[in-house]
Amino acid sequence: MRSDYCGVLRSADIDRVVTLCGWVDRRRDHGGVIFIDLRDREGIVQVVFDPDAAEHFEMADRVRSEYVLKLTGRIRARAPEAVNPNMVTGEVEVYGTALEILNTAETVPFQLDEHTDVGEDIRLKYRYLDLRRNEMQNNLYFRSKLTTAIRNYLDEHGFLDIETPILTRATPEGARDYLVPSRTHEGKFFALPQSPQLFKQLLMVSGFDRYYQIAKCFRDEDLRADRQPEFTQIDIETSFLDEEEIMAITEGMVRKLFKELKGIELGEFPRMTHYQAMLRYGSDKPDLRIPLEMVEIKDLVSEVEFKVFSGPANDPNGRVAAIKVPGGCSKLTRKQLDDYGKFVGIYGARGLAYIKVNDRSDLEGGLQSPIVKHLPLDVRAAILDRLQAKDGDVIFFGADKAKIVTEALGALRCKLGEDLDLYTCEWAPLWVVAFPMFEENDDGSLTALHHPFTAPSCSPEELQKNPLEALSRAYDMVLNGTELGGGSARIHDQAMQQAVFRILGIEEAEQREKFGFLLDALKYGAPPHGGLAFGLDRLVMLMTGSSSIRDVIAFPKTQSAACVMTDAPGTVDTKQLRELSIRLRQKEEKIS
Amino acid sequence: MRSDYCGVLRSADIDRVVTLCGWVDRRRDHGGVIFIDLRDREGIVQVVFDPDAAEHFEMADRVRSEYVLKLTGRIRARAPEAVNPNMVTGEVEVYGTALEILNTAETVPFQLDEHTDVGEDIRLKYRYLDLRRNEMQNNLYFRSKLTTAIRNYLDEHGFLDIETPILTRATPEGARDYLVPSRTHEGKFFALPQSPQLFKQLLMVSGFDRYYQIAKCFRDEDLRADRQPEFTQIDIETSFLDEEEIMAITEGMVRKLFKELKGIELGEFPRMTHYQAMLRYGSDKPDLRIPLEMVEIKDLVSEVEFKVFSGPANDPNGRVAAIKVPGGCSKLTRKQLDDYGKFVGIYGARGLAYIKVNDRSDLEGGLQSPIVKHLPLDVRAAILDRLQAKDGDVIFFGADKAKIVTEALGALRCKLGEDLDLYTCEWAPLWVVAFPMFEENDDGSLTALHHPFTAPSCSPEELQKNPLEALSRAYDMVLNGTELGGGSARIHDQAMQQAVFRILGIEEAEQREKFGFLLDALKYGAPPHGGLAFGLDRLVMLMTGSSSIRDVIAFPKTQSAACVMTDAPGTVDTKQLRELSIRLRQKEEKIS
Repeated sequence: MRSDYCGVLRSADIDRVVTLCGWVDRRRDHGGVIFIDLRDREGIVQVVFDPDAAEHFEMADRVRSEYVLKLTGRIRARAPEAVNPNMVTGEVEVYGTALEILNTAETVPFQLDEHTDVGEDIRLKYRYLDLRRNEMQNNLYFRSKLTTAIRNYLDEHGFLDIETPILTRATPEGARDYLVPSRTHEGKFFALPQSPQLFKQLLMVSGFDRYYQIAKCFRDEDLRADRQPEFTQIDIETSFLDEEEIMAITEGMVRKLFKELKGIELGEFPRMTHYQAMLRYGSDKPDLRIPLEMVEIKDLVSEVEFKVFSGPANDPNGRVAAIKVPGGCSKLTRKQLDDYGKFVGIYGARGLAYIKVNDRSDLEGGLQSPIVKHLPLDVRAAILDRLQAKDGDVIFFGADKAKIVTEALGALRCKLGEDLDLYTCEWAPLWVVAFPMFEENDDGSLTALHHPFTAPSCSPEELQKNPLEALSRAYDMVLNGTELGGGSARIHDQAMQQAVFRILGIEEAEQREKFGFLLDALKYGAPPHGGLAFGLDRLVMLMTGSSSIRDVIAFPKTQSAACVMTDAPGTVDTKQLRELSIRLRQKEEKIS
Repeated sequence: MRSDYCGVLRSADIDRVVTLCGWVDRRRDHGGVIFIDLRDREGIVQVVFDPDAAEHFEMADRVRSEYVLKLTGRIRARAPEAVNPNMVTGEVEVYGTALEILNTAETVPFQLDEHTDVGEDIRLKYRYLDLRRNEMQNNLYFRSKLTTAIRNYLDEHGFLDIETPILTRATPEGARDYLVPSRTHEGKFFALPQSPQLFKQLLMVSGFDRYYQIAKCFRDEDLRADRQPEFTQIDIETSFLDEEEIMAITEGMVRKLFKELKGIELGEFPRMTHYQAMLRYGSDKPDLRIPLEMVEIKDLVSEVEFKVFSGPANDPNGRVAAIKVPGGCSKLTRKQLDDYGKFVGIYGARGLAYIKVNDRSDLEGGLQSPIVKHLPLDVRAAILDRLQAKDGDVIFFGADKAKIVTEALGALRCKLGEDLDLYTCEWAPLWVVAFPMFEENDDGSLTALHHPFTAPSCSPEELQKNPLEALSRAYDMVLNGTELGGGSARIHDQAMQQAVFRILGIEEAEQREKFGFLLDALKYGAPPHGGLAFGLDRLVMLMTGSSSIRDVIAFPKTQSAACVMTDAPGTVDTKQLRELSIRLRQKEEKIS
């Protein structure tokens, strides 16, 4: 129907006769001539209809925004004063000679450009119109190019694309499952997968060696800004490779994606242990664009009378740490200092001590601070030394239970980075490694920090003896403070797998019932294997600079897990429910 | 961990020292030397351990089938008498110098080669072992290569890969939906998509121009041999292209796939109208490998006294037709002729008349048949002429309601093709076009032959006037009697869409409730658009020559829609159901 896309026409096309199809982005009448900006996937070109071509002029006069047109015309150079440097097609225009209206359009309910200021609910209700906006077109175009580049990379590296089931059994990722009642197996339910974890491990047991899938995953959780009930994972698993090799392959992929799609060289990713990440950045996904670091000062304040510091300093579970903001004196207002005090309260801190270093040569009068009077001069000097403070710097303090200090100062660090625009680079990737195998719950039971199939870096005996000391062979890829992906070497030994289950309090019978097929698979020649999963939505979001995950998904759900366009979820008639052997629970039943 | 895959080693590698990882396919002890066939994804190579390398020899002596090994050795030529022409690596072997047992294996529950004769249930229960078999490895390897080739083709042709939701609203494909109870919207349910049909149409309304997705689709139907509750579709939609262009692009894709992956030139696909396909082949997906055709003889027998023929011949809804089997006299036994009589009974035919043409010059004694005596000589001669029968041919007859004759002789045609191996070629693709828009149900209501979004080739007024005469702009791609894919130009005009809904008995209120978003989308500038969907599983099945769809899916469901490996679907505790505001229906409730 068409000869060219609108958005690709350039000076080199001058004098060509083209047929274009697309939407009327704008139509204006100027000095008796009609100008139509015609839009398609590739961009916009200006088309001119003048009254000399009478028949088509009249039709052109009738078109309105978002009409669908097919038109023919000759490309010509625009007059020098009419060249539009803001349009890639701005040097040319199409002199229209034929026009067909393929479809009309009513007035759209909101403006389809960057000035859209309607609420997101309206955008989602008319998603098919919202997706016409340049930003959304670019995002989904980018997403498609990204997945193609991912597939090409993995294909070149010998990975096989293998599909795993959507209708499956509850998986142990820990989030709530979406359930699907079975019609043929009365009273039983499928679960939608939270990840293809066990299936991909079984594919390694089958000998496929290198597997990948761009896989839909599902979690029925209360949604935060960057979560969706269904999300997409770049899922990877390999056999006979150790952590280093898996990290090298996947790091290579991300580096290639940034190079190919954004022209950015990320360089080699630094490594950091989980312990160091928590200690210095207060986060297991540190944002290394921000040059601030937490500095331990427990030893410096253990003897002071000031209980706010000496208490935690002498508590084995306590922590006293500080963050220095270079030049903070001139950047931070009194109000900001107060606001940060409230901000760290979110993380349980009971206040935020600080020192403004006005003149560090004067330890008496040169330090402006609500707490400095409680600290002897030598301690003041020692703190300034350790933080290498200079005149004009501000130092923030955290003193409390270690967990609170770490989280509060870690969060403050990111907030300072954002508020004061302290970023030293645009992209800061790293690997976080050497995670603990388990974390302790309040009741003393243990939870797997990653998942129960993660291999520890010690023997089953050592693991059992001291589970909280054990480190795992897991690795997370972090970019700009966001976890892009995570993975691990997996357990390929039945005894080790059972040891982990036991430590997690999963007894023999439950092991058989839930994971019998995995335990069986491990005894018939399971190879050493491991892998990784990336969050595709989040990767696209970061790479396109989108502020919401919903802006990189064609048809996302709202925060209440609904689709306002199709009105899903919907009601279902009783006959259907009866076929599934279920019924709706009555309100009164739930109260009782 | 490894330097090479086992299956790729050749004479050119002689003298190289390699490290291999894989599974023990077979271990045998021959003249004091141990031979291990080591297997990985790429194939098998023979490794030799002799007693001179004492330490590793002992370990080699301990290995058993399916142990996982890492070993090192030098490639050497086999002695001429030991060359194995049946193995691609059969000219070489690895002289083992180091060996590590990475994992042991218990005796597997069935033999992992082509001689497996256990039931499919056992294979599915231990699917991770079944997938080690050469056939299954090849199938999934092929499937991955096929999807990669599909994506590359579509990518080169400007198609964007866009994901559509899995948690969505009931779609109108007509099969039973899988439902997912919503936790946040009490008493409401998502449906899993039977296809992304409406979403892909909306993407065209959004201006994405060319969309594709390799999409999971779901149907809760009672399963036939070639059906699965979840299946995979190559889903394609385009704007501003007419049927011819869409057919050209997708035919080009299938031709390229056959060329690239199987080295087969399919050539240009012939076209056939639905009417011709039914008339000549008794099927809307004719298998053109079989040279038999149905021939109309209604006019020849309308005057005969033989009511079995003249009855249908004089009934406007009747049909009398014949199929000639060249040389059938010597190929078909009396028993087969009887069996075919029973076979057509499946389709409602009350018998199968035939004539064995022993000597066509003798219309009296040369024709062997239970019915020929009821036919005058001139009719006999006319029939033989029309069918161009020769001595030794057999002619079968169908005389009944047109539907019965068409179906029965259509099925008989395929059965004869298979039984007598009449195939004239290996691959016979074609397009079937010009389908009716609607078919009539027994109660006089109408059903869409494809789906309600298929565009007719007439105006809304003509459509309304004579719906049963209307043809659609649909097209099916058929290969060897299997429907590979189907599609159509879609309705992009609101008035036309509403006309179709009305003809299907969907009233205004129901239209709004179920398809309001589509009808809205059509009024804001919907472009002309159309597309196609291929069944990926079926395509892989045909191209790999597999006999079951389950052999081309990594983790398929059984015929009762269960996974015997993970034991899905499973039971769910009451707490989970309560969160979803549903409960199980009690047995007694269902009886009442």
